[in-house]
Amino acid sequence: MSTPGRRPVLADSVRITEDAVEILDRRVYPFEHRWVRCATSEDVAVAIERMVTQSTGPSFAATTGMTLAAREARGEPPGLAAARLRKAGDRLIATRPTNNHIRDAVEAVLAATVDGPLPEAYGDELVEAVTRAAAEHDAAYLASSAAMGRHAAALLDDGDRVLTHCWADTYLIATVEAAQEAGKRLEFVCTETRPYLQGARLTAPTLVEMGYRPTLITDGMVASVLSDGLADVALTAADRVTMDGHVVNKVGTLGVALAARAFDVPYYVVIPAPDPRAPGIDDVVIERRDGDEVLHVLGRRTAGEGVTGHYPAFDATPPHLVTRIVTEHGAYPAERVSEHFGPVGRSGSPNGIARA
Amino acid sequence: MSTPGRRPVLADSVRITEDAVEILDRRVYPFEHRWVRCATSEDVAVAIERMVTQSTGPSFAATTGMTLAAREARGEPPGLAAARLRKAGDRLIATRPTNNHIRDAVEAVLAATVDGPLPEAYGDELVEAVTRAAAEHDAAYLASSAAMGRHAAALLDDGDRVLTHCWADTYLIATVEAAQEAGKRLEFVCTETRPYLQGARLTAPTLVEMGYRPTLITDGMVASVLSDGLADVALTAADRVTMDGHVVNKVGTLGVALAARAFDVPYYVVIPAPDPRAPGIDDVVIERRDGDEVLHVLGRRTAGEGVTGHYPAFDATPPHLVTRIVTEHGAYPAERVSEHFGPVGRSGSPNGIARA
Repeated sequence: MSTPGRRPVLADSVRITEDAVEILDRRVYPFEHRWVRCATSEDVAVAIERMVTQSTGPSFAATTGMTLAAREARGEPPGLAAARLRKAGDRLIATRPTNNHIRDAVEAVLAATVDGPLPEAYGDELVEAVTRAAAEHDAAYLASSAAMGRHAAALLDDGDRVLTHCWADTYLIATVEAAQEAGKRLEFVCTETRPYLQGARLTAPTLVEMGYRPTLITDGMVASVLSDGLADVALTAADRVTMDGHVVNKVGTLGVALAARAFDVPYYVVIPAPDPRAPGIDDVVIERRDGDEVLHVLGRRTAGEGVTGHYPAFDATPPHLVTRIVTEHGAYPAERVSEHFGPVGRSGSPNGIARA
Repeated sequence: MSTPGRRPVLADSVRITEDAVEILDRRVYPFEHRWVRCATSEDVAVAIERMVTQSTGPSFAATTGMTLAAREARGEPPGLAAARLRKAGDRLIATRPTNNHIRDAVEAVLAATVDGPLPEAYGDELVEAVTRAAAEHDAAYLASSAAMGRHAAALLDDGDRVLTHCWADTYLIATVEAAQEAGKRLEFVCTETRPYLQGARLTAPTLVEMGYRPTLITDGMVASVLSDGLADVALTAADRVTMDGHVVNKVGTLGVALAARAFDVPYYVVIPAPDPRAPGIDDVVIERRDGDEVLHVLGRRTAGEGVTGHYPAFDATPPHLVTRIVTEHGAYPAERVSEHFGPVGRSGSPNGIARA
């Protein structure tokens, strides 16, 4: 039996060592605790591409990938080193087109280091500056999660049964911790979230680590569960929220939102901020992944020959199906979330993390 | 490549031999073509209980199970033999509480054989009578499927992309055959239908056998697909339709119906007839299966320890979310389907199969 209150394994799943980055392989968790070793920033990009880590994991992977790139630039003239950093950043950003976390992490590191006048030469300063900027971005990310967690927990009542979809990562952990601090008891119903089973493999085991006994359902059971009154709220993260309140999240979220609305269950979405570069849903690229992933589960083939898989990684939920967007600033109606965040470079933050 | 027009393997998946019944094991199809041998009617009941066959398969299994029971009664006094048949029928009916097919099959066989005055003694007459009644029920079942298939195909347009959920068995095969006869080209998007993956393992491969190249999606992708305009109609079978038009079918159907309504896609339900013994949804027992089945896929565990599975085998879709109920008599609005069928023992058929 797990110890309530213990920090779950997935709360710290990217680590940097003297000569590499190690990323916990979420594709095989919790069956194996395998760490993928990345010796170069390119290795980190490949690991993200291959879904070794996902959800908020790529943000932490990206900052460490930039640190590796800075190490690779050691001894290079500043112009070349800066170009190498930018190229590594572009490569990391290109790994996943829908989620902004990687872009935000890369841009935060570049802004704090090589954006602006460069020195005559670097000794260890570039590596130190990138390492510091990476640590600051990671810390800001976690502080943002903690703020969102408090705002989300405030929406939950003592005894609430919470339906989750996919894996909300640090946002979920922060929400649960805030609810525990507030003395609110919760129960959880988790979708398994095919094809990668993040709900079964990441969300449910993490909730067990945190002291709960979650109930697992298949993705097709959401409407049945809500229709039967077995959950009081639905709660998911988002990969992107547009300024007009559309929620882009793991495919299946739209079905959760439709069922929640049909059976009068509030649906809450947790994300640091809407994306000022995405005024509407047409500004978001929905990633299509390899359809063969749908034809397999845990490495085994599910369908016979002659069948084609279709795998939109995300879907888009319109604002009228969302009860509240829970941001780092507070919880707001989806249609009005942009009122609380300025455009790029103004009062709001372009990367969804408030700057000091 | 398959040959269009060939009868698929699943169209004939229960067979009776000199000394046993053999049932194609749908739990491992299409990876293995394994036939489970049932030497007694009790073996048949256990096979149904263990999901060796499902959807319309249990109807054919039940008639053969009754034939085995008649063979087991050979040489017994008629009263004892009749009691043995009735007991075997009760046992078969008890295997699955939601679907009526087994009850209908058992009652048809009993009505044609031991309901009414019994002779002084039986020679081979009882076995012959049960075998004949079983064959007649099977033939009526297939004729009913063919009629439904024609009515369903009439609702489809040339070129339609059809979203399926779970496995509609002989109803789907009949619909496809009728569409082919009418020269209508169709495409298919099939949900995989966890936890048993009937969509991936039964529907998609059968459509391949019939000459199509179906697209497979996970259960969570239904709303995404309909929102993106990738299917023109949704079509499922039903395990039960109440007289007031509620559709009881494989869990996940309610989510399909909600998404179809949200994105203006017609949703058609195929079933021989509404159930005159179920005036409303409260008259239907929704089967709960072992939650551990949700924690596994193709024999592999999906979630860690401390997680509980929840497995309602069916859900209930209200009539206002259904475009048409396609019966053996024709296609009707769900709210008015009972107008076309009488109560038990009157003009309509209590077992959903029209009597000559």
